[in-house]
Amino acid sequence: MRSGSNAPRVGSYNRNVVLDAIRQSAGVSRVELAAHTGLTQQTVSNIVRRLIRDGLVTESGQIPTGLGKPRIGLQVNGRAYHAVGVHIDPHSITYVIVDLVGNVVARRARRPPAGTRPATVIRQVARAVGDMVAGSGVAAGSVLGIGVASPGPIDAERGEVVSPPNLPGWQRVPLRDALAEQTGRPVYLDNDATAAASGERWVGRTERSGSFLFVYLGTGIGSGLVLADQVYRGDTGNAAELGHVPVEARGRPCHCGGRGCVEAYAGLPSILASLSAAAGRGASRGAGPGASPGAGPHAGPHAGPGAGTAAGRGAGPGYRDWADLDAAIAAGDRAPRDAVTVAAGYLGAGTVSAINLVDVNRVIIGGRVRRECAEIFRAGVERALSRRTIARAVRPLSVEVSLAGQDVGAIGAASLVLHGNYAPHPSALLADIGTLP
Amino acid sequence: MRSGSNAPRVGSYNRNVVLDAIRQSAGVSRVELAAHTGLTQQTVSNIVRRLIRDGLVTESGQIPTGLGKPRIGLQVNGRAYHAVGVHIDPHSITYVIVDLVGNVVARRARRPPAGTRPATVIRQVARAVGDMVAGSGVAAGSVLGIGVASPGPIDAERGEVVSPPNLPGWQRVPLRDALAEQTGRPVYLDNDATAAASGERWVGRTERSGSFLFVYLGTGIGSGLVLADQVYRGDTGNAAELGHVPVEARGRPCHCGGRGCVEAYAGLPSILASLSAAAGRGASRGAGPGASPGAGPHAGPHAGPGAGTAAGRGAGPGYRDWADLDAAIAAGDRAPRDAVTVAAGYLGAGTVSAINLVDVNRVIIGGRVRRECAEIFRAGVERALSRRTIARAVRPLSVEVSLAGQDVGAIGAASLVLHGNYAPHPSALLADIGTLP
Repeated sequence: MRSGSNAPRVGSYNRNVVLDAIRQSAGVSRVELAAHTGLTQQTVSNIVRRLIRDGLVTESGQIPTGLGKPRIGLQVNGRAYHAVGVHIDPHSITYVIVDLVGNVVARRARRPPAGTRPATVIRQVARAVGDMVAGSGVAAGSVLGIGVASPGPIDAERGEVVSPPNLPGWQRVPLRDALAEQTGRPVYLDNDATAAASGERWVGRTERSGSFLFVYLGTGIGSGLVLADQVYRGDTGNAAELGHVPVEARGRPCHCGGRGCVEAYAGLPSILASLSAAAGRGASRGAGPGASPGAGPHAGPHAGPGAGTAAGRGAGPGYRDWADLDAAIAAGDRAPRDAVTVAAGYLGAGTVSAINLVDVNRVIIGGRVRRECAEIFRAGVERALSRRTIARAVRPLSVEVSLAGQDVGAIGAASLVLHGNYAPHPSALLADIGTLP
Repeated sequence: MRSGSNAPRVGSYNRNVVLDAIRQSAGVSRVELAAHTGLTQQTVSNIVRRLIRDGLVTESGQIPTGLGKPRIGLQVNGRAYHAVGVHIDPHSITYVIVDLVGNVVARRARRPPAGTRPATVIRQVARAVGDMVAGSGVAAGSVLGIGVASPGPIDAERGEVVSPPNLPGWQRVPLRDALAEQTGRPVYLDNDATAAASGERWVGRTERSGSFLFVYLGTGIGSGLVLADQVYRGDTGNAAELGHVPVEARGRPCHCGGRGCVEAYAGLPSILASLSAAAGRGASRGAGPGASPGAGPHAGPHAGPGAGTAAGRGAGPGYRDWADLDAAIAAGDRAPRDAVTVAAGYLGAGTVSAINLVDVNRVIIGGRVRRECAEIFRAGVERALSRRTIARAVRPLSVEVSLAGQDVGAIGAASLVLHGNYAPHPSALLADIGTLP
């Protein structure tokens, strides 16, 4: 049964609508805000007065209007509040401090401790957050909380990391509460790709308004969904698991327990393993077709996060990560370009499923992937969508590369805090239904 | 940029919240409504007074409460308003009149005119609607409009049927406006599976509150998505196209232009063609493995809606539709049970994609499919979801058979009208953003 709405909720919702509009369009005037939001000028004026009083908004100078009174531009006071964002990736933990406007005011990255035991990682994260805030010059009291982006699946309600294929040994880890206890700050947990989608919306401002699917290419493959300016999470907080959409019904086994998943073909370990296997075949050329049994690309996803490195050090050409692939492709190497192109075809097939199901007009490619590979994936996904989605007959689809760069996961984690506190959610209008979190 | 909200919108939203709550729980009291909706008792009393004055709600008698004043039960006056629902299927057009409570007060079904030329079909539909309303005893003035469920894709904004694979010859047909002109009534158009999802929510009341994916098995395969009690339509009105989710990257060509789609394996024509091919192989047994080239299951989806019938009249066992399959399975025939079980495996793979992407905890199987086949599909989908979805580790998934029966498409079409006018949409709270339609 639906909940009703009431005046206090409408008031706080409208306040966040106005604040978000000022954040997206720095220098906007009260008159323009009224036109953009559909609110009366009186309502806008009252809200702006309170935002200025609370230190969240400042007046940024006069806008000449020809005749009549000049308008006054408004901007968000970024320094009023900050959030910490932490992105836990199997190979690297990235930390940022983001201000209310969306500027990154501090950043660091650390390799996770050997063995990645949850308790060790959580202790390291708590210490690193404290050190970073202390060294950043940001007023400790202005930090609203810590957002954490973790590989999925997660249990959003309990704040637990459930058993991510890309974090072996993490079983039902109460990351949110443990980190909150060790830091004394509120902690918000989300899966990495959903956090990245939130980060892309935050950084992209008006260029990322509306709806889009954000495809996150890191160690694994995930995606996040923004629907009508709201991050969509699903019933369990695990929506948009693009990496585990099957594209071959009886295909390769995947480390998630399924078969034929996108990630088993298009994930980084799979690309590295296929290059390594091809190099091995090249080395033993002439030994006959039975020469390298078991060296097929599906060795990748089973072998854990170190597979690519190990394979690279073996018979292969030594690629270890997205940066290596990008450098080789930029230098004109054919093999990595071909391997990524094949992977892009599988990602395209998975994205056709996604778009046929969620029907959004925009797909963004981003994450740890670098420029050359991102463009190959972008083109492959665009080709698949333009040939095969049902809605292509109704409206064109746009496929773009991320505006947020490689730190989108960490920035997104921080935006969970800022967005949760300060962005407009229509669900906040409904009595008894809270915003996240 | 998001729109703000204001008092009149909140008022009409809350009115619809209360009306929907009374519809879902006939006999509910004002005190219970306040508890269910989070509104104050004063707000609920004011809304109920207006609903009674407008003839939408009646008091249904006293509820004893022991001590104190007895509470008065409320119920929706179904007769206050009606809607016509039309479901256009390649093989049959179904018409219903549904009252405000959700009761079907009239029903008829007609074979579409030969050739299914759009202008001919629209004329026939306009005449049939007029005849049915005239013969139903329903006050013509109580009919709010006509909802039409059509095979997709549709252009929701323009009210056009774009070029459905299952309606050959329909190219950008302005169905909404043409029918509105011929009947003089408002017309609401949606794709059949989305309308069916809306119908399931309407019929299922509290049993279908929250979020679910409705899988529609008719001539083709579609699905509709209800998220937090709202029908989700996507950017173009073509969300949840489950039939055209690829499950084999280099699989059978599908009539949509793609390859390896769920519908190319699990659609009715494909099942009928595979049975027909198997029967043909049985008849020519001993002729060697090359005896029936081209008689594989993928003959089905290409051959148009008549394929099953034609194939059935040939070498096959003569099955034409879901009813034939159900009768044979109920009689213990092995071949149709096996064919539907294989199809259910492919539907299961597509549903894994859907649930990994939209993350809802409930899947409903329904449409034209009958009891035996529905149960085979239900079990196959449940098996696939419980083995392969990412969120299975967080929360159990439930797979159920539809409560709405075979007319769910037509009832859903009618509910588009009633839901559009009388159900609570949070989007209606936002200034300048209308409800559909």
